[in-house]
Amino acid sequence: MKPETKPPTSPVLDYLEQLHREFAAVKDGDVATYIPGLAKANPNWFGICLVTATGAVYEAGDSRQPFTIQSISKPFVYGLALEDNGRTEVLKKIGMEPTGDAFNSISLEPGTGRPRNPMINAGAIATTSLIAGKSAHTRLQRLLDMFALYTGHGVTVDESIYRSESETGHRNRAIGHMLRNFDILTSDPIPSVELYFQQCSVSVTARDLGIMAATLANRGVNPVTGKQAIRGEYVESILSVMGSCGMYDYAGEWIYKIGMPAKSGVAGGIIAVLPGQLGIGVFSPPLDAHGNSVRGIKVCDAISRHCDLHLLNRPNIGKSAIRFKFTGAELNSSRVRTQEESQVLSQSGGGIKVYQLQGHLSFITAEAVVRDVIGDFDATQQLILDFKRVLTLNESACRLFYEILLKLAEQGKPVLFTHTGHMPLLRRYLKAKLGKRFEKLFQPFDDNDLALEWCENRLLKNVLPARPARQRARVVEYELCNHFTLGELKTFASFLKRQSYKAGETIIHIGAEAQEIFLLARGGVSVFVPQAGGARRRLATFSAGMVFGEMAAIDRAPRSAMVVADTEVECDVLSLDNFDRLGVSHPATKIKLLKNLNLSLCHRLRKANRELSLFD
Amino acid sequence: MKPETKPPTSPVLDYLEQLHREFAAVKDGDVATYIPGLAKANPNWFGICLVTATGAVYEAGDSRQPFTIQSISKPFVYGLALEDNGRTEVLKKIGMEPTGDAFNSISLEPGTGRPRNPMINAGAIATTSLIAGKSAHTRLQRLLDMFALYTGHGVTVDESIYRSESETGHRNRAIGHMLRNFDILTSDPIPSVELYFQQCSVSVTARDLGIMAATLANRGVNPVTGKQAIRGEYVESILSVMGSCGMYDYAGEWIYKIGMPAKSGVAGGIIAVLPGQLGIGVFSPPLDAHGNSVRGIKVCDAISRHCDLHLLNRPNIGKSAIRFKFTGAELNSSRVRTQEESQVLSQSGGGIKVYQLQGHLSFITAEAVVRDVIGDFDATQQLILDFKRVLTLNESACRLFYEILLKLAEQGKPVLFTHTGHMPLLRRYLKAKLGKRFEKLFQPFDDNDLALEWCENRLLKNVLPARPARQRARVVEYELCNHFTLGELKTFASFLKRQSYKAGETIIHIGAEAQEIFLLARGGVSVFVPQAGGARRRLATFSAGMVFGEMAAIDRAPRSAMVVADTEVECDVLSLDNFDRLGVSHPATKIKLLKNLNLSLCHRLRKANRELSLFD
Repeated sequence: MKPETKPPTSPVLDYLEQLHREFAAVKDGDVATYIPGLAKANPNWFGICLVTATGAVYEAGDSRQPFTIQSISKPFVYGLALEDNGRTEVLKKIGMEPTGDAFNSISLEPGTGRPRNPMINAGAIATTSLIAGKSAHTRLQRLLDMFALYTGHGVTVDESIYRSESETGHRNRAIGHMLRNFDILTSDPIPSVELYFQQCSVSVTARDLGIMAATLANRGVNPVTGKQAIRGEYVESILSVMGSCGMYDYAGEWIYKIGMPAKSGVAGGIIAVLPGQLGIGVFSPPLDAHGNSVRGIKVCDAISRHCDLHLLNRPNIGKSAIRFKFTGAELNSSRVRTQEESQVLSQSGGGIKVYQLQGHLSFITAEAVVRDVIGDFDATQQLILDFKRVLTLNESACRLFYEILLKLAEQGKPVLFTHTGHMPLLRRYLKAKLGKRFEKLFQPFDDNDLALEWCENRLLKNVLPARPARQRARVVEYELCNHFTLGELKTFASFLKRQSYKAGETIIHIGAEAQEIFLLARGGVSVFVPQAGGARRRLATFSAGMVFGEMAAIDRAPRSAMVVADTEVECDVLSLDNFDRLGVSHPATKIKLLKNLNLSLCHRLRKANRELSLFD
Repeated sequence: MKPETKPPTSPVLDYLEQLHREFAAVKDGDVATYIPGLAKANPNWFGICLVTATGAVYEAGDSRQPFTIQSISKPFVYGLALEDNGRTEVLKKIGMEPTGDAFNSISLEPGTGRPRNPMINAGAIATTSLIAGKSAHTRLQRLLDMFALYTGHGVTVDESIYRSESETGHRNRAIGHMLRNFDILTSDPIPSVELYFQQCSVSVTARDLGIMAATLANRGVNPVTGKQAIRGEYVESILSVMGSCGMYDYAGEWIYKIGMPAKSGVAGGIIAVLPGQLGIGVFSPPLDAHGNSVRGIKVCDAISRHCDLHLLNRPNIGKSAIRFKFTGAELNSSRVRTQEESQVLSQSGGGIKVYQLQGHLSFITAEAVVRDVIGDFDATQQLILDFKRVLTLNESACRLFYEILLKLAEQGKPVLFTHTGHMPLLRRYLKAKLGKRFEKLFQPFDDNDLALEWCENRLLKNVLPARPARQRARVVEYELCNHFTLGELKTFASFLKRQSYKAGETIIHIGAEAQEIFLLARGGVSVFVPQAGGARRRLATFSAGMVFGEMAAIDRAPRSAMVVADTEVECDVLSLDNFDRLGVSHPATKIKLLKNLNLSLCHRLRKANRELSLFD
């Protein structure tokens, strides 16, 4: 055992460093020379960065060495073109079929002249021409602003590489004119070709690429800064063209072996994206015959195999949405019930079904919930759907919940929704679909406890005979006075002091010294503990005839919860002094009182233990 | 409110039926005629089947109408070829690059003569030639057996379609001879071409296709029968070639718009697979110019959009593995502690960290757990990892747990694993990696309660001064006798009766009438409730000086749990008769006793309420 207490490094970082050592020794491939500026790269530069969609950044080697982004710019600019023009307009100009050809192939579609896809140069130049902006300067600035959102910091064009690209970019100018010939570009092609050269000359690092890739993995939200870099709805399109056409004529093998949408650039960068999980950025200048970084491919291949990341190798997520399911017979609201009521709840509360949902509610996870509800339909009288631990919810899941709500409502079975505050889509969706019936059928509750109480009350009303609301408990009706003789009742009453409280008034303050036990004669009170953010959690609600505040009186601890009058309240208060005196003057009565207290605690402890066992 | 109580139909089924009505009206496309047998198909046949990876089957229309599988056989036979030969051998014969060409293109790779991919006919014939078997009959039977695993029932070849295919299949014979020319086939090509015709003539239904697709979605396990149809490791390869080459020259657009690996056949079938989620099978004979079913494409497109199924549109799953995290200060084992011990646990138990894990542990979800552990490393003294609710665990996750175990062990911090019985991979992995240290470092526990107790004991031993094990509690030491005078102790002792039990003996039986309260003089006892499957759950463990069995004595309910002697045990037993008599003869003593009972219940109720609030 070492005395050291420094937190250890992450095993993920250890692994990247090991990979870096291993592949630094690989000397295959050649630095690109067709743009003179690129030929100056040091073939030993080698940086790796893995970024999770939750924002953890792991870096090894030269992950902060700048280089030019080159073709890796293409999918990002494609995303901006989609935002600027919409999918329909973009697809009129550029296709999405792989060519099986090299990156600089012209590959225009016979007839339309549409470049086959946005990852070949012809398609990328057409894409760049779609970026909105009145001047060349504005359009460049918009591209730079976009990259700044993806990387989390301002980016610049490497002017020397840009000049080098521009001086030697005759083939791309030819492509520009060919696109103009087919009316894919509708004005002078040269400014778009120059902007394309600039976008390719944007300076980035492997760390930047990792974060950019993770932003795509996180549906367009940069996981480090939390800022939206691209509208989520376009991410699937960007990743689709990366997946089918991102690695040129190596695309099929890449998906087969590595299984992540990816894009490479001739400066030696590669990004790979595993949607919903992580992004990888690698930089190493020497390229293979396909024009992809040799070490970059090895790193992606190794990480994919080592970490089992193939996109098409997915576990079955169908059953992951139901965190916990229970009935109103197993767990009750915090309203304290009479013995008769408790019996009804434990016998018939099974018709109240509570689903605690969790994680990501999509078609397939919501289907599993809805299937479970339908499978148990006959036995279900009231349904509570708890969204507290739901992280995301899409429209397709909303639709299934809407439809199951209707099917239950048709048979008079209410559906209650709890903790939906962070799910505005659900409310909007139900409101749009339910129209006038929205107010009646959409029953939102702040928490399960209130929803459960509502369901319990509805059940009790149906089962127990209607009784006039009890105006005021007499001493004989107090649960603490069970088995008291008339004489004992009279004696006991003389030890009590009547006190009144207004609705909303605090009867017991947290931290106060316990000096009395309260017998509730009239009205209702609730016990709360404060929670983070000013909220408070209800522990119990009592009605006339019940006792409260006895626990602190028993263990003489400071009051641990506050008690508030829900209505106008009258209490018979037994001071602890009188409680002690009663034992001296009337020990038999005191013994009965203590036994009744024991019994009450005993019932509550049994209930708490039963409930705890549900969470095992 | 209707009186009807029949369970309603699923909204998923409603939706498929609505789609069926909508697209039945589409009359575009033509039934394939190039094989005369196919031309007889009724253009109005139209079946839809959606099957979840959890095994729910939804069908609409002519989902039981048989037709021939045609090219949809290709990915399945490719899977069998991988099983028979391994990936390396198969890749020597057949590539995986998309061609952008039509299904019957020959597309051999220049130089190697390798067909570009297994989805074009040339690649499919090469694939079929790789199926193992000594005779043509055996090889056909192996194919049929494979299809039977995927569909869940025996399948047959439609002999009339097969004859028709064979009579007109000159182009495929030409392909066979061309493959022989390049030594891709190494013997007479004709038997392989005939077997290929037979595999294409296998008779299936849309329902079969849905289940076959869902089997691929469920990592090779048929979700309806539970049988493995293909080794899980090959599923990603099958889906990769479907994704890049499955829809011929429509593959790029298909992935872009519909975003699911898919395969179509000229008889009008289509399958689409969303890994981990669902499979779709559609059948409708009229085809478009690409050779894909017109209605089939419309159905897949509509379902994908309606249900938001694009493969590359995934929520961030990083944080889904930690179900619940707590410390030994918040929740304790069921061993009942002395007040001194309880105080140590509530002050220093925070160093015991318990992670309840859940769902699918892969690289990215395990990374989030490991990151959390490292982030809290200094404050962590002992770590419990609970696998009870973990559904799957891959090697990459095992590796991360292994590495974090080592890093903690280096600093003398133990890691305990609970509920790992259903995770044999974890044990195997750790055993292989830890070698001789396995027994010392891998500490598996049946449940969190036992693991927590182990950690608590370790903590208490370090903090509290070592004391000789208490041989036997005297009456003065019973918690129930707090504040008793010497005279009261003596009186009380005269009401008790000493009883002895052997280790393992049952002291209290479930259902028995409560007739006594037990004061534990020597040894230890545990309280259990039986659980499904013969297991039992520990509710509490008591040591000398404590009281047990008092709750049933208070509420006079039948015993709800069993109490077993953990060691040799001696108890001082207070019968309920004596309990009552004590109140008559010595009311002051009885009052003290009841107050102590109240106090004990009160502490336990507070603890239970505290623990319950964790699960809110």
